[in-house]
Amino acid sequence: MKLPNAKDIEAAYKRIRSFVHQTPVLSSESINTITGAQLFFKCENLQKVGAFKFRGASNAVLSLSEEQRLKGVATHSSGNHAAALALAARQNGIPAYIVMPDNAPTIKKKAVAGYGAHITFCKPTLADREATLEKVIEQTGATLVHPYNQFEVICGQGTASLELTKQISDLDIIMTPVGGGGLVSGTLTYIKERFPQIEVIAVEPKGADDAYQSWKQGRFIPCTHPETIADGLRTSLGTLTYEIIRSKIDGIYTVNEESIVKAMRLVWERMKIIIEPSSAVPLAAVMENPEHFKGKKVGIILSGGNVDLGHLPF
Amino acid sequence: MKLPNAKDIEAAYKRIRSFVHQTPVLSSESINTITGAQLFFKCENLQKVGAFKFRGASNAVLSLSEEQRLKGVATHSSGNHAAALALAARQNGIPAYIVMPDNAPTIKKKAVAGYGAHITFCKPTLADREATLEKVIEQTGATLVHPYNQFEVICGQGTASLELTKQISDLDIIMTPVGGGGLVSGTLTYIKERFPQIEVIAVEPKGADDAYQSWKQGRFIPCTHPETIADGLRTSLGTLTYEIIRSKIDGIYTVNEESIVKAMRLVWERMKIIIEPSSAVPLAAVMENPEHFKGKKVGIILSGGNVDLGHLPF
Repeated sequence: MKLPNAKDIEAAYKRIRSFVHQTPVLSSESINTITGAQLFFKCENLQKVGAFKFRGASNAVLSLSEEQRLKGVATHSSGNHAAALALAARQNGIPAYIVMPDNAPTIKKKAVAGYGAHITFCKPTLADREATLEKVIEQTGATLVHPYNQFEVICGQGTASLELTKQISDLDIIMTPVGGGGLVSGTLTYIKERFPQIEVIAVEPKGADDAYQSWKQGRFIPCTHPETIADGLRTSLGTLTYEIIRSKIDGIYTVNEESIVKAMRLVWERMKIIIEPSSAVPLAAVMENPEHFKGKKVGIILSGGNVDLGHLPF
Repeated sequence: MKLPNAKDIEAAYKRIRSFVHQTPVLSSESINTITGAQLFFKCENLQKVGAFKFRGASNAVLSLSEEQRLKGVATHSSGNHAAALALAARQNGIPAYIVMPDNAPTIKKKAVAGYGAHITFCKPTLADREATLEKVIEQTGATLVHPYNQFEVICGQGTASLELTKQISDLDIIMTPVGGGGLVSGTLTYIKERFPQIEVIAVEPKGADDAYQSWKQGRFIPCTHPETIADGLRTSLGTLTYEIIRSKIDGIYTVNEESIVKAMRLVWERMKIIIEPSSAVPLAAVMENPEHFKGKKVGIILSGGNVDLGHLPF
């Protein structure tokens, strides 16, 4: 199991920087007043396809050999990773094969199809998703790009924090949500080597606290029966991401569902940007634990902005 | 009637730049594909108080004499200008007196009160608003800061376009919505002197087309019985703003209500930012008149992001 280091993240950044948006860092005086902290929001909700996932997908696509490029890339996903891989593939002129459960929201099917990917529908079970993906890869020879448990993907996600440290200096803390662990693993890899004085904190919903449990108990515990509005965080860690988190993380907070919705609404109202529930999870932790963050310069990575406007939780 | 020039805008920019956000310019590949144009959105919805109005209010406050500062500033407004003036005054440690109609939305009353302004309520008629404001000014000696028809306010609003031209070069067109005309007047003043090759186009709803009618007929026509979802654009031009628009504007488009809602939703969905209906009006014009904008580099000033999340038009 080869773990990435800071140089790998820097190489990824060189590879992808002309393909991704350099997203802005925004702050809000009123949210700073409410929390007592100085918060700097890295707006990956404003990234292409509306999520940081585009960084990892782009790095995976741009790391392919010439022979692999011809055969394309494949994954199974019903979420942001599917759209991210589809667009990254199209931008590089290579085919993308996406396995999606047939009950995925129409809007997501349309988005992935809109980016020109070949979609194969399957039954909405993990077993059928994996079996169908295996078949697709067998037929096409495409390279699997995992949503998070893959070297190149983790390196791509780490570039969000690399960019953040160029935009804002002297941060005390960087916070990310944790689902599969790609974003926080990339962040840890870069930050703990280049800025070891910055505390890196992951946050997850109490209703899907597998990363917290794994970290506390010192052994991998999968995510079963997740119950949270933060749909991006319902996944288990992978072997790679668990190993990086286990060895490097400074702390993991878990938060209530009400705090997530409250934090989400606060960002919409005060910052005028659209974030999905998963993005609100770190701010929810700041609001639940103000003493930890008081007076600190805190970078928060807003992971994405893909919500169904017809079904808001407020 | 003293009209501002480009130097006045540059002086305003020096005055206010450490008080206002340098707002980002965002673009969306998918909206570019839909419209056939290259659109650059200047995000004044991400400005403090969620609107470009903070620029003009800040310039007005920072232009006061020492004696005027002691007595503070006053205005009547139920919208973004009230909040903008209240915050600009607080940031500079001077009192703000705001006259608001007693039927103003609770959320707006709270926002203005939250910025520490002294609020005087009045009946929701223009006559009572003006009479009440006159009384407040008589009692306090405060300086009137008009929402748009004032030299310093126009100069402040013009700094949005100044900043945009620093961020994006070689624009062919700049578009703004037009209500009272402060934003487009400031834009025209700066752009037509410094970048005369850039076309400046104003857009307003068909249901509140007084600027269009005034321009077409060559005489000032007030806005009576406006009917539009774009609540920021229901006002008449002022004498100053009419004069600047009359003499400098390259064109005015009017748009349908359905186009406004469609454009607004498109920005929310594709760009993950919250804009109010007034902000969507220029994009609506691009979508209604694609031939004018095809292949062009177009700067669009998104005027604000203050919407009631409980009452969305979609």
